[in-house]
Amino acid sequence: MKDINLNISDIANILTEQSRQEAWSSHHCDIPMPSIRVLSEIMISLRAVLFPGYFGLSKVTTKNMNYHIAAKLDSITSSLCEQIMCGHCFDCSGDKSGDSICINCEKNAKELCLQFMRRLPEIRRLLSTDVEAAFDGDPAAKTHGETVFCYPSLKALINHRVAHELYNLGVQIIPRIIAEMAHSETGIDIHPGATLGERFFIDHGTGTVIGETCIVGRNVRLYQGVTLGAKSFPKEGSSEQLAKGLARHPIVEDNVIIYAGATILGRVTIGEGSVIGGNTWVTTDIPKKSSVFHKDQPIIKSV
Amino acid sequence: MKDINLNISDIANILTEQSRQEAWSSHHCDIPMPSIRVLSEIMISLRAVLFPGYFGLSKVTTKNMNYHIAAKLDSITSSLCEQIMCGHCFDCSGDKSGDSICINCEKNAKELCLQFMRRLPEIRRLLSTDVEAAFDGDPAAKTHGETVFCYPSLKALINHRVAHELYNLGVQIIPRIIAEMAHSETGIDIHPGATLGERFFIDHGTGTVIGETCIVGRNVRLYQGVTLGAKSFPKEGSSEQLAKGLARHPIVEDNVIIYAGATILGRVTIGEGSVIGGNTWVTTDIPKKSSVFHKDQPIIKSV
Amino acid sequence: MKDINLNISDIANILTEQSRQEAWSSHHCDIPMPSIRVLSEIMISLRAVLFPGYFGLSKVTTKNMNYHIAAKLDSITSSLCEQIMCGHCFDCSGDKSGDSICINCEKNAKELCLQFMRRLPEIRRLLSTDVEAAFDGDPAAKTHGETVFCYPSLKALINHRVAHELYNLGVQIIPRIIAEMAHSETGIDIHPGATLGERFFIDHGTGTVIGETCIVGRNVRLYQGVTLGAKSFPKEGSSEQLAKGLARHPIVEDNVIIYAGATILGRVTIGEGSVIGGNTWVTTDIPKKSSVFHKDQPIIKSV
Amino acid sequence: MKDINLNISDIANILTEQSRQEAWSSHHCDIPMPSIRVLSEIMISLRAVLFPGYFGLSKVTTKNMNYHIAAKLDSITSSLCEQIMCGHCFDCSGDKSGDSICINCEKNAKELCLQFMRRLPEIRRLLSTDVEAAFDGDPAAKTHGETVFCYPSLKALINHRVAHELYNLGVQIIPRIIAEMAHSETGIDIHPGATLGERFFIDHGTGTVIGETCIVGRNVRLYQGVTLGAKSFPKEGSSEQLAKGLARHPIVEDNVIIYAGATILGRVTIGEGSVIGGNTWVTTDIPKKSSVFHKDQPIIKSV
Amino acid sequence: MKDINLNISDIANILTEQSRQEAWSSHHCDIPMPSIRVLSEIMISLRAVLFPGYFGLSKVTTKNMNYHIAAKLDSITSSLCEQIMCGHCFDCSGDKSGDSICINCEKNAKELCLQFMRRLPEIRRLLSTDVEAAFDGDPAAKTHGETVFCYPSLKALINHRVAHELYNLGVQIIPRIIAEMAHSETGIDIHPGATLGERFFIDHGTGTVIGETCIVGRNVRLYQGVTLGAKSFPKEGSSEQLAKGLARHPIVEDNVIIYAGATILGRVTIGEGSVIGGNTWVTTDIPKKSSVFHKDQPIIKSV
Amino acid sequence: MKDINLNISDIANILTEQSRQEAWSSHHCDIPMPSIRVLSEIMISLRAVLFPGYFGLSKVTTKNMNYHIAAKLDSITSSLCEQIMCGHCFDCSGDKSGDSICINCEKNAKELCLQFMRRLPEIRRLLSTDVEAAFDGDPAAKTHGETVFCYPSLKALINHRVAHELYNLGVQIIPRIIAEMAHSETGIDIHPGATLGERFFIDHGTGTVIGETCIVGRNVRLYQGVTLGAKSFPKEGSSEQLAKGLARHPIVEDNVIIYAGATILGRVTIGEGSVIGGNTWVTTDIPKKSSVFHKDQPIIKSV
Repeated sequence: MKDINLNISDIANILTEQSRQEAWSSHHCDIPMPSIRVLSEIMISLRAVLFPGYFGLSKVTTKNMNYHIAAKLDSITSSLCEQIMCGHCFDCSGDKSGDSICINCEKNAKELCLQFMRRLPEIRRLLSTDVEAAFDGDPAAKTHGETVFCYPSLKALINHRVAHELYNLGVQIIPRIIAEMAHSETGIDIHPGATLGERFFIDHGTGTVIGETCIVGRNVRLYQGVTLGAKSFPKEGSSEQLAKGLARHPIVEDNVIIYAGATILGRVTIGEGSVIGGNTWVTTDIPKKSSVFHKDQPIIKSV
Repeated sequence: MKDINLNISDIANILTEQSRQEAWSSHHCDIPMPSIRVLSEIMISLRAVLFPGYFGLSKVTTKNMNYHIAAKLDSITSSLCEQIMCGHCFDCSGDKSGDSICINCEKNAKELCLQFMRRLPEIRRLLSTDVEAAFDGDPAAKTHGETVFCYPSLKALINHRVAHELYNLGVQIIPRIIAEMAHSETGIDIHPGATLGERFFIDHGTGTVIGETCIVGRNVRLYQGVTLGAKSFPKEGSSEQLAKGLARHPIVEDNVIIYAGATILGRVTIGEGSVIGGNTWVTTDIPKKSSVFHKDQPIIKSV
Repeated sequence: MKDINLNISDIANILTEQSRQEAWSSHHCDIPMPSIRVLSEIMISLRAVLFPGYFGLSKVTTKNMNYHIAAKLDSITSSLCEQIMCGHCFDCSGDKSGDSICINCEKNAKELCLQFMRRLPEIRRLLSTDVEAAFDGDPAAKTHGETVFCYPSLKALINHRVAHELYNLGVQIIPRIIAEMAHSETGIDIHPGATLGERFFIDHGTGTVIGETCIVGRNVRLYQGVTLGAKSFPKEGSSEQLAKGLARHPIVEDNVIIYAGATILGRVTIGEGSVIGGNTWVTTDIPKKSSVFHKDQPIIKSV
Repeated sequence: MKDINLNISDIANILTEQSRQEAWSSHHCDIPMPSIRVLSEIMISLRAVLFPGYFGLSKVTTKNMNYHIAAKLDSITSSLCEQIMCGHCFDCSGDKSGDSICINCEKNAKELCLQFMRRLPEIRRLLSTDVEAAFDGDPAAKTHGETVFCYPSLKALINHRVAHELYNLGVQIIPRIIAEMAHSETGIDIHPGATLGERFFIDHGTGTVIGETCIVGRNVRLYQGVTLGAKSFPKEGSSEQLAKGLARHPIVEDNVIIYAGATILGRVTIGEGSVIGGNTWVTTDIPKKSSVFHKDQPIIKSV
Repeated sequence: MKDINLNISDIANILTEQSRQEAWSSHHCDIPMPSIRVLSEIMISLRAVLFPGYFGLSKVTTKNMNYHIAAKLDSITSSLCEQIMCGHCFDCSGDKSGDSICINCEKNAKELCLQFMRRLPEIRRLLSTDVEAAFDGDPAAKTHGETVFCYPSLKALINHRVAHELYNLGVQIIPRIIAEMAHSETGIDIHPGATLGERFFIDHGTGTVIGETCIVGRNVRLYQGVTLGAKSFPKEGSSEQLAKGLARHPIVEDNVIIYAGATILGRVTIGEGSVIGGNTWVTTDIPKKSSVFHKDQPIIKSV
Repeated sequence: MKDINLNISDIANILTEQSRQEAWSSHHCDIPMPSIRVLSEIMISLRAVLFPGYFGLSKVTTKNMNYHIAAKLDSITSSLCEQIMCGHCFDCSGDKSGDSICINCEKNAKELCLQFMRRLPEIRRLLSTDVEAAFDGDPAAKTHGETVFCYPSLKALINHRVAHELYNLGVQIIPRIIAEMAHSETGIDIHPGATLGERFFIDHGTGTVIGETCIVGRNVRLYQGVTLGAKSFPKEGSSEQLAKGLARHPIVEDNVIIYAGATILGRVTIGEGSVIGGNTWVTTDIPKKSSVFHKDQPIIKSV
């Protein structure tokens, strides 16, 4: 590409052309794309209605919170409904270049949004168990409130439990964006498809990855750098191609603890009550109430 | 929970009830909760007074910085004092539901805040040694200024050295929030209780965790993914329950280097001048001037 | 340091004095320092011209994007030119304390900025291949657009490909700041000096580090926690001191896959088409089309 | 004053000294002064609860407005209460320099604020009659809504009816600030002490002044540049000194129209149903159902 | 109305009920109301495209302005189109309570908006003559640019010439809102229906009012406090009721000057080249090239 | 002008061409134009240093104000210096199209700015007398502080006394912009050239105009709608053309009161201690201690 002496106008034309040529690279219909800024505001509001006082207006008390929750719920409903519609149109934007609002899309989005809003009390209930689990699981935690205020685990779980509901309702793209917001903020990367039971807690959390088809039981605790991933590493000679949508991530049963840096790959089951040690590499089923650790002993020499 | 046909008003009522039922879940007295937004502004201002020009107003020079530092210090004092009081009230909010400002709390907060402000020159002095250490420790660093501008290590240490002073003064909840801000921004998770000596440096840093009762000496360098944690992994058959507040994290003596991904657990001592290799797993004392590495050799096959 | 009874004014004076004493610690000439806020706005605008609709104004369509791209390019040019000049002055600020604008610096900055702008179409072309690679490489990706919207890999690569061009043009400090912005947002730490081929993809990405002198081929895929670093760990008894600027990071040839947590250190070459397994530790050349994995088997006991 | 060679620091010291020397010129106690910014936000919120949709959130409909009104009322209560207290402290700041919050002041402020909030429905009812009057009184008005959206009269009356209630409750300084906000926005200057009946309307309004002790009846219409002032102009030889607080402004009875530029001075009564012509100068009582006009005929010459 | 002991919730309910009861008082359909905030942003953008550099981005030069004008035009088109539709729905909101977007309304709004945009060059041409007139007409003006930057006349005329085009196109409510914005900012109140010729200038301007059916010729100059109004003042005994929409304001022919405080009422014609003196009261036709002044001589006495 | 079927791109081109064709209409060199936004921020800061607590940070007390004043003064100096330079370049932009920063301009601007800053204590002293005058002159004023907080007179005088100093220093365009800001906010239009003595007060103020060459003595009080203008109205047959820069506005001696709506035109002198009645029209010298009133008596009839 000869780029000597291009001026602003030329560069703009080339960039425009590049965006136009690729079907996926930008929008062809009049419905705007989902807006990361708007979705970010929605999540800020959702945090404020789920844990009033901790997030949003710090002056909220038990006496006056009802007014603010109702107002925020109304605003969330209106914004989220629009984003759900944008998300739907975005996903089909490569296929056709419709010019008018799809009436069904709009109706659909409203219905999906309403269904989601009705799930908020259940989301709140689950998060409340997560708060308990965090308090119980970290010797450094002094109050329940501290775990809401300061723990990346809870921030990641608010986003996840919201994204997971939207994912289950079949909402397009939006759940992924919400999950990635939490990933960016906390270093915890949970795919919205993952199913997480009550009382879930991830301590520290940076680098932990939980894959799309994971199923995690009740009262499970993870640490930083844990991977619950797909066994995509080809064994000797084999060529196992991962088909999309297959169950390919671990099942973790109730009351399991997985320490920092452990890697669990493939559709294996970690049995109830097991403890997986740090830095271990697990690619097979683990029986109930097992303890798994690695045998590696470092070599120590004097310098 | 039957959630068919709930409208905004119903959902708001349920969420409000949920927040009211749990003692910890929101505020019962009239003092507002600590505000993450305000604390975030305080940290922005503190960075600007500690490293004027790098953070805050980019036009500050050695000639005019005094005016801006003084004005910011005054604003910080006023905001921080309020947050310290909110933090105190927050921590006792579950126990009693007082309705009026606790006069002692307010006085206390002022006194604590003032004591903290007087420690700023010492915090600045320590951070200055950290800048030197970063410059000396990274072959890619070209100027001292670059390490202030671009290194996550310094950002994490500004927050830590501030949070640690507040922690030592007995300030509630606020130090944890400040620490978590740095964790979110840098991926480096240092508990405000940890004691870190001069000339501390963490290269890259993502995923590094330093526990509450760690004591780290002078001139220590860490890399990404290092854990200085508690040995909470139960040995075979044993059941060591971690009591809160016990010294449970490593002591790292002067001039130690710990490479990426090393895990050091429990109240062990890493002797002066030792080098801990990457990916090692250390749960015992290491003598002075040792070098520790893991013996793992990968298996290489042709595909 | 006796700090009893210091008031705001005293503390400001001490902090000012501390900043003045250290040559690096703040600015001595009248050119302002580079501004992280302004550079952050520049990156927001650059994302919007490279992927209009995804970033920036969500209402942009293929019909109207040209206007907005041109206007943003003009604003970017003006802001970036100023920052490049500030970056240059920053780097020489310790040496001399000039009082007037260096005319050559200003001219130079304009020329460098213009050269950078002309490289944008090439940057866009490379990123377009990265989008393809992300879509092909992740079974969870449903549309190309999703990889632009949600994948930290692409965000890190936008910043990197921009920073790398500026680095190649000899721009001071600015490339590092841009790289660190992506590091903070994604947990992916790529030094602006690293050379990355087409179709590059990092899945999840948290904790991945790519060093300054890395050379990465075409169609390479990485996962989270991968280190492409310098072999700074001293072997037994040896004392290899890393000289600045030497080629000290790996060469990764085309079509290589490196799984989560792998550590590759030193100026070694990973041969074309090889697969490096998770958690491996590689410090030697790897022949083409090899598969590397670690032999570690965990020990499993019942609790 | 010798001001050669003053630098920033000197100038700051002089300005500080000037502010300190004058009892009134700044604050001596720890309660902050009333904040114009906060009061401005309060008025924005009050407009939004009184005329939802017109002011504030444009998406509000009759279905969802209740949530937003309640949340805004709660926020207004909290902010206004604080400002009322600041206003009280401000007014006594010249007299004593108390250092602690006056407990009575705080209680008082809460009580006054609550009493004001309870008057909002009555304020709304009065404003509703003003809207009717504006629609009936201006041949250019096409809908009632237009008079809410576009008429300075209504904006001035919202502020006035709010300020008048606060004035009646004995709130210090705040009512004047609110009145001046409307003056700045509309050019209509109504003292908060003025008593205005239902269905009040001022067309165009710029330059209209209504004094503190005015009493205006029902269904009165004014135009721009009307003065309802005090007869402070000394007649020949006389020297009538205006004592503070005396009734010194006109009484305007029901159904009066006063055209542009009319000046009515002193405690005179404009009788029911009268019409005061433009540019007239009235300093005596006017009987009921009078029409008053000036006899001035211009002189016309050809140039 | 008994308002003792009302709490926030009760007050919110009453206010909601009040807004619901009055047909005009708020919105009944799902199309949001016109937004003063959005319209204000549109006017800021329109000023920036009509006089680039003076308004909006101060760095715009003749070289780069094209990009910014195009981008702003596109944004204006999109926002204005939406506001035009909201304005239409607003005006019919009292009559029916439609629930879905009127497809015709949307199409109509787009068409009207496009027609308006095409008139911008003509609006710019007219305003350019107004700038010339301001420079020629004020001995205090030193450069043409000064009249754009500082003269309320031009600000009022930008809004008026924009609002007048929209008014002519039949756009509802929006033109009035735009006119009132200028009124609030400048104290000059021009009804969007008024027809103003080239080279129009109002010096100082505060309090000047120009009515809906005024027709003003070329090169006319006004001063502050001038009223071009309707003769609504009933003559002795008469009862002339103003019918809506009738031509009821003055016709001012070319090259007329009207000095401060002059009042001209009714459908009279001020003949070409006439000069109307300050404070005069004119309710009859004035022949061409007349000079009109009032004969009032003040009485002077020594105190 | 044929405007059918123009699209955005065409309209942008025409508007650009229009701006390019007129010498005055936009900028030809690289120095940006003065920025109304920046100047507005400068005035906000200046108000805060002149009356700390009233404007700006409401928490400022006599104890801590020194820090904030110094920091603001430094920021003002830097911004104002830049605007002064922009103002200079703006005024010569029509004549030549220089491409580089005029070194002399920059130096000059710094010097002018510094001289202005040194005048701030004198400006503050004058304003302090204005506060006294406002308190003494308005029976409705209850405290001195109220006159600072609420009186448009003081806001207009802060801007005027600042603008007048800049005007005297020969600063281009900036003083006019500052004056117009006050005009827009208060309806009081004072040309920056006007010389106003101590203890100046304008009650209500809307519509008052004070011309460029006015000289006003000590302790003068004005009301709304007063004009101190040029006698530009041609007397019968005469043709007095106003030359630019001539002394053409009134001289008002000490202790004069001028009531609402009075018009004083031409270089006449209002003698010491005189009282000018409302609505009077004065075009001749008035002896000392005169009282002037108009003889107009309205005609009163019953309807």
